[in-house]
Amino acid sequence: MSVMRLGYVHTRVTDLAESLKHYHETLGMQVVAEEPGKVFLKAWDEYDHHSVVLEEGGVGLVKLGYKVERSADLEDYEKRAQQFGVLTERMSKGDNLAVGDGVRLVLPSDHVVELYADVEQTGTATGVLNPEAWPRDLVGVGVPRIDHTLITAEDPVAVERFFSEVLDFRASERVVTEPGEDGDLLGSWMFCSNTPHDIAFIKGPNGKLHHFAYQLADWSEILRAGDLFAMDDVSVDVGPTRHGITRGTTIYFFDPSGNRNEVFAGGYMTFPDFPTITWTADELAKGIFYIGRELNERFTSVLT
Amino acid sequence: MSVMRLGYVHTRVTDLAESLKHYHETLGMQVVAEEPGKVFLKAWDEYDHHSVVLEEGGVGLVKLGYKVERSADLEDYEKRAQQFGVLTERMSKGDNLAVGDGVRLVLPSDHVVELYADVEQTGTATGVLNPEAWPRDLVGVGVPRIDHTLITAEDPVAVERFFSEVLDFRASERVVTEPGEDGDLLGSWMFCSNTPHDIAFIKGPNGKLHHFAYQLADWSEILRAGDLFAMDDVSVDVGPTRHGITRGTTIYFFDPSGNRNEVFAGGYMTFPDFPTITWTADELAKGIFYIGRELNERFTSVLT
Amino acid sequence: MSVMRLGYVHTRVTDLAESLKHYHETLGMQVVAEEPGKVFLKAWDEYDHHSVVLEEGGVGLVKLGYKVERSADLEDYEKRAQQFGVLTERMSKGDNLAVGDGVRLVLPSDHVVELYADVEQTGTATGVLNPEAWPRDLVGVGVPRIDHTLITAEDPVAVERFFSEVLDFRASERVVTEPGEDGDLLGSWMFCSNTPHDIAFIKGPNGKLHHFAYQLADWSEILRAGDLFAMDDVSVDVGPTRHGITRGTTIYFFDPSGNRNEVFAGGYMTFPDFPTITWTADELAKGIFYIGRELNERFTSVLT
Amino acid sequence: MSVMRLGYVHTRVTDLAESLKHYHETLGMQVVAEEPGKVFLKAWDEYDHHSVVLEEGGVGLVKLGYKVERSADLEDYEKRAQQFGVLTERMSKGDNLAVGDGVRLVLPSDHVVELYADVEQTGTATGVLNPEAWPRDLVGVGVPRIDHTLITAEDPVAVERFFSEVLDFRASERVVTEPGEDGDLLGSWMFCSNTPHDIAFIKGPNGKLHHFAYQLADWSEILRAGDLFAMDDVSVDVGPTRHGITRGTTIYFFDPSGNRNEVFAGGYMTFPDFPTITWTADELAKGIFYIGRELNERFTSVLT
Repeated sequence: MSVMRLGYVHTRVTDLAESLKHYHETLGMQVVAEEPGKVFLKAWDEYDHHSVVLEEGGVGLVKLGYKVERSADLEDYEKRAQQFGVLTERMSKGDNLAVGDGVRLVLPSDHVVELYADVEQTGTATGVLNPEAWPRDLVGVGVPRIDHTLITAEDPVAVERFFSEVLDFRASERVVTEPGEDGDLLGSWMFCSNTPHDIAFIKGPNGKLHHFAYQLADWSEILRAGDLFAMDDVSVDVGPTRHGITRGTTIYFFDPSGNRNEVFAGGYMTFPDFPTITWTADELAKGIFYIGRELNERFTSVLT
Repeated sequence: MSVMRLGYVHTRVTDLAESLKHYHETLGMQVVAEEPGKVFLKAWDEYDHHSVVLEEGGVGLVKLGYKVERSADLEDYEKRAQQFGVLTERMSKGDNLAVGDGVRLVLPSDHVVELYADVEQTGTATGVLNPEAWPRDLVGVGVPRIDHTLITAEDPVAVERFFSEVLDFRASERVVTEPGEDGDLLGSWMFCSNTPHDIAFIKGPNGKLHHFAYQLADWSEILRAGDLFAMDDVSVDVGPTRHGITRGTTIYFFDPSGNRNEVFAGGYMTFPDFPTITWTADELAKGIFYIGRELNERFTSVLT
Repeated sequence: MSVMRLGYVHTRVTDLAESLKHYHETLGMQVVAEEPGKVFLKAWDEYDHHSVVLEEGGVGLVKLGYKVERSADLEDYEKRAQQFGVLTERMSKGDNLAVGDGVRLVLPSDHVVELYADVEQTGTATGVLNPEAWPRDLVGVGVPRIDHTLITAEDPVAVERFFSEVLDFRASERVVTEPGEDGDLLGSWMFCSNTPHDIAFIKGPNGKLHHFAYQLADWSEILRAGDLFAMDDVSVDVGPTRHGITRGTTIYFFDPSGNRNEVFAGGYMTFPDFPTITWTADELAKGIFYIGRELNERFTSVLT
Repeated sequence: MSVMRLGYVHTRVTDLAESLKHYHETLGMQVVAEEPGKVFLKAWDEYDHHSVVLEEGGVGLVKLGYKVERSADLEDYEKRAQQFGVLTERMSKGDNLAVGDGVRLVLPSDHVVELYADVEQTGTATGVLNPEAWPRDLVGVGVPRIDHTLITAEDPVAVERFFSEVLDFRASERVVTEPGEDGDLLGSWMFCSNTPHDIAFIKGPNGKLHHFAYQLADWSEILRAGDLFAMDDVSVDVGPTRHGITRGTTIYFFDPSGNRNEVFAGGYMTFPDFPTITWTADELAKGIFYIGRELNERFTSVLT
């Protein structure tokens, strides 16, 4: 595997100023650069230049960036994507601020994913010499890093196959209508790192974002985030609770434009030999929200 | 103040065996005695004989026991109750297993409350000589103690006045339709100890139980309880979340008969000079569920 | 019982400015008033005027203030103290900034304790109308309130008897050389509220302070405090760990003058009928530091 | 990178029965097989056959097993090890119970490391179909998995170079006598997964074990482990505390034979492009024990 992680989420927002209150004041990301109609932010424990790009106008994903370990592999990924039969194009250094050359892929679900190996490294807030455990001057939730995205796809089987065959991701968990050959795939959680998921997709319209997530340290940070959402009047969708799928703990909430975010903590470790877990549709509510075992209408229908 | 704490909750259940799976196997209370159609249980950190009585047949409260510090005060409480204008009667040693003489009061809301000073002390599970921090052989959630009850009353003002004037309780928090003289009381949280509430009442039908609660050590125990509710297929109402009122963290859930229970952790300390907090009706949802700021229909309507 | 709680700790410090960095910037107390050579501070969840007084010059306790519920009881406490045989004197409104009339007692251990019922109430940081769960602008650890003190006494039996007979405190836990009549008392933890201790004393020189403590919400706040002690270069004595005695979790640390502080979370609830726990000297290390079961020289010898 | 993780720790113990009380009853590992003088155990969230082998007679490491993703890479690792100049030998299926063919390497520090790609997968305790979040019947601490080892080496530079050049590990953190070219390496923490360390070495005698570690979910599990160590009279070395290096939270303790174990939770995520952190010797105590910033003699000198 050469894909290392979700590097950036580039998303549309209806109002930049309002969004900054959310992403900076409540979540605690730092603004690292601005372009007309765009703001670039990073979280405190990320060493790359930025991890979130907000672009004014509309809602939903513009694209996702996944960072690969070796630039030498980009061409190979491009070939495999072409063989798979999706659109690809080269991206050049500077197409994305601070990001080097890369390859742009259109998923079978119409989402755009950019692969790149080079991005300016500006360092974490605690540095690399005798660092403190965390920055003394955190703002709001003080999210340390982005973690994963969940997108929707009309044909989740195709997207899963794409991530598996082209990008060497593996499935940690799958939801099927019934176990065995006859079951239809309703969702798949896939990893390229040792986390339970670096991307996930569930059945739904192409091109849509269900949510993107920030990683928090633990369950007590989840509560603290929830408290801040109350204080800052952030719209909360579900949580705090635990997921059955991934075992992580979570709160889902919305940015002011209606894009769903998540704070996520915990979850098991995956490895390339991880035995994929299967959830059956009758246990789906427990898989999604382990404690309450109920799905609300909003969670399953609101997408951007 | 001589009333020390909620000593016991005596509640009806439709099926004793099924209830024991809940109160013993899931919650971890120990069965300490049985009578025909009745089971007596205690939690591990309680030193009195029992704290929960399950009585087969129906649902809802039979009565609540509040333990007072000095038996000499029982007569005084009786007089004050009579002056207040509610029904009272003497109860004798043996009326309740292991409980001494006392006074039985009928609240303006028709709930029965027993006051008593003597009950057999059988000790906690960790004992009084070089005790461990908790018992090595806890079952399930392993609740350490009961904490409070929430009941409904057609006239919450009368019940609040009763607890204030007769039993020396004080209000920690009150929900009113609007602040000031013109507001109507929708709920009151009252304390006799240093906790945010030893009893609470909200507007509703007389004689009904909204829930009774167990105290857990902290937010991480709340999650562990929620996990066990999932494993044991306990019906969860709301949570985990935080309350605005009391600041405590919580999960509401149902016993197999439909009586609502709560696990509760945290909350501030109260003292006799505590300045009562006021919540206005427009902020009620935040007061009840601080993080999600939504009330579900079930939470506000299901009573036993 | 009419004594409600530890109301203030008045302590000497060698340097006020340096102390403020500790008590304000690291611990997060707010400066509420200043007098020449004195600073008054409060913690965010306290509603009285102040809870810590720092007085420049030397180290150690000037005096402790315990707040009583009813001013009518002050005279009674004074009489009982005189009958016990200790020095008492009246204190007048204004002797202590914002504090009303009261009684000053000299313990058998030479510590000075002031009892008072009236003090200006300036409110908590979150207020009494639809309050948030905690203040959005906490500084450093953000301690919510003071909790207890531990002092040393040549004759702990006399001090325990004083707090029991004069002030109606009860012992939650006692350390003795051996159980039974022949054992000598090495330490006693006593309560007037529902906490495990509102004051404690161990055998040692008269008039000395071992530590005074702040209450934190839970074990995760203990870690966060420890992190901040590292960042702010606060000298840590012991912890994080759990106590056997009280079951609380803890870090001991020093202010810049060498006065020992504690952050403390958890612990069981006490009530007037609480069965006193006995620790024997051979298990003392486990009683003090449950996890490591070792006492360091510094912890047992450094007093101010 | 093809090395995935620490697969097993094979260690000597003086007494098997006593060791089982520790590794099974206190830590909660399950015995999965026995051979004369040997016991094989696994933790509940591991899917391979076993992760700890206890061999009666003496103390200290017999060997470590690191599992690689592709058996095709074993030969390559063997060649690179030979080129590096260390002893290697082939190991055959059955040399280690349930483990397939592999390569045995002797580190420059004389420790034996086995690489293998095949081992019988017996599954986790929660399974792969609609799994619960954790097993309902955990024993003691209930460790989910092993995490890393710390070994000592006379020449840490050589061992670091070996893990870098032969096994494709990377350094997350390094402790040096002074920053820059002139500094001597005192310790190195290296990763092949996304954790802060899969192995670490500090300057010391060759062939010795400092500790091996179990991963726990979070800081609250660290406390729970510490409580159980007190109840089961496990000898605790240091903790609970936080590490500066790795940011993880920790308790060090000893098995009955004197081998040091650790429970470890948290820590940041590493990736192949992780910028190595440097600690200077003057900040070493803070790097090791962030909160107390003191090293005890036992921690730095006791090895097995």
